[in-house]
Amino acid sequence: MPDCCIPDEGPKVVQPGKQKLLSRLNRIEGQVRGITKMVDEDRYCVDVLTQISAIKSAIDSVAMQLLENHAHGCVAKAIQEGKGDAAIDELMMVVKKLSGKTLG
Amino acid sequence: MPDCCIPDEGPKVVQPGKQKLLSRLNRIEGQVRGITKMVDEDRYCVDVLTQISAIKSAIDSVAMQLLENHAHGCVAKAIQEGKGDAAIDELMMVVKKLSGKTLG
Amino acid sequence: MPDCCIPDEGPKVVQPGKQKLLSRLNRIEGQVRGITKMVDEDRYCVDVLTQISAIKSAIDSVAMQLLENHAHGCVAKAIQEGKGDAAIDELMMVVKKLSGKTLG
Amino acid sequence: MPDCCIPDEGPKVVQPGKQKLLSRLNRIEGQVRGITKMVDEDRYCVDVLTQISAIKSAIDSVAMQLLENHAHGCVAKAIQEGKGDAAIDELMMVVKKLSGKTLG
Repeated sequence: MPDCCIPDEGPKVVQPGKQKLLSRLNRIEGQVRGITKMVDEDRYCVDVLTQISAIKSAIDSVAMQLLENHAHGCVAKAIQEGKGDAAIDELMMVVKKLSGKTLG
Repeated sequence: MPDCCIPDEGPKVVQPGKQKLLSRLNRIEGQVRGITKMVDEDRYCVDVLTQISAIKSAIDSVAMQLLENHAHGCVAKAIQEGKGDAAIDELMMVVKKLSGKTLG
Repeated sequence: MPDCCIPDEGPKVVQPGKQKLLSRLNRIEGQVRGITKMVDEDRYCVDVLTQISAIKSAIDSVAMQLLENHAHGCVAKAIQEGKGDAAIDELMMVVKKLSGKTLG
Repeated sequence: MPDCCIPDEGPKVVQPGKQKLLSRLNRIEGQVRGITKMVDEDRYCVDVLTQISAIKSAIDSVAMQLLENHAHGCVAKAIQEGKGDAAIDELMMVVKKLSGKTLG
């Protein structure tokens, strides 16, 4: 797995498969605009909610990819440099946030 | 609770608090654009993931509002008209989709 | 769909498919005991976590069945009796709790 | 953070805070028995569902603890031994399962 951490001014991280991620995020942005249009046009509730489910799936997919990149890259690197505990604490914090288990 | 179903050509539903919903959806769209910019600018993975958690929360919030409107409006109306079984089956389908328990 | 509400001393509700639900709950109880045994026997973390995922699925399945029974029975009944708003508020409260969106 | 991997015949892992985990699992087992009793005694649907939410929370809590132990222990160890990629792939698989994003 490619190392995703390229330290620069501040912690810069070039995501593996960056263009694909950007492409998926652009698509999600379009889907959100689509839902806004549906509500604006008084579309049936269930149709809107079905679209929302699709968006949630797409976002979770992007999140999983970023989490995977982060674990393989930044976390593995930190462990090799002897800073693993803090990196794993941070990873767990992110996992809990994504699962909706903590506030903020 | 206001009845949210206003039958028109096809099933048109004017959401209670429509402007507030549109406003929240516009904000979410902006947040997605923000994440895209973060990935494009090679921001640290954990910062992006933290923002994604915020977006997921915001989307879930909108979904819950729509679900509530739908239940109080369309579902209650269908039950009063003797079409409750189908409406509740549909409601349960939506609840399962939103919880990620079914495909599509 | 059968009406699941049989009012008695206090709000008594005989679940449709009660025996099947009890059977599934007994199985889940066994699965939890299984996990306890795995941790006690120092089994590999990932094996325990995989079993936990299976239990979460099984519990969600029972929850969805109960929610469905409740919506088709108690909620529909309340709406027909003109007490729909309170019943739907309660339903939404339960849906939010099950999705982990509220405390308590 | 304590290393949680103690290799023995097969991959044996003594969980940090093992007794506390066992205690929580025993409590969860009791809660499941409690729900079974509630359904058997025809308790109100919403009361049963509220208890199920509590059980889901408790299970998620145990899962997060095990995941954290695993990451700090087994995963960090694997990375230091140069077997990080496989360990992180496995970690991600577990995270996805726990979030309900994959089957099995």
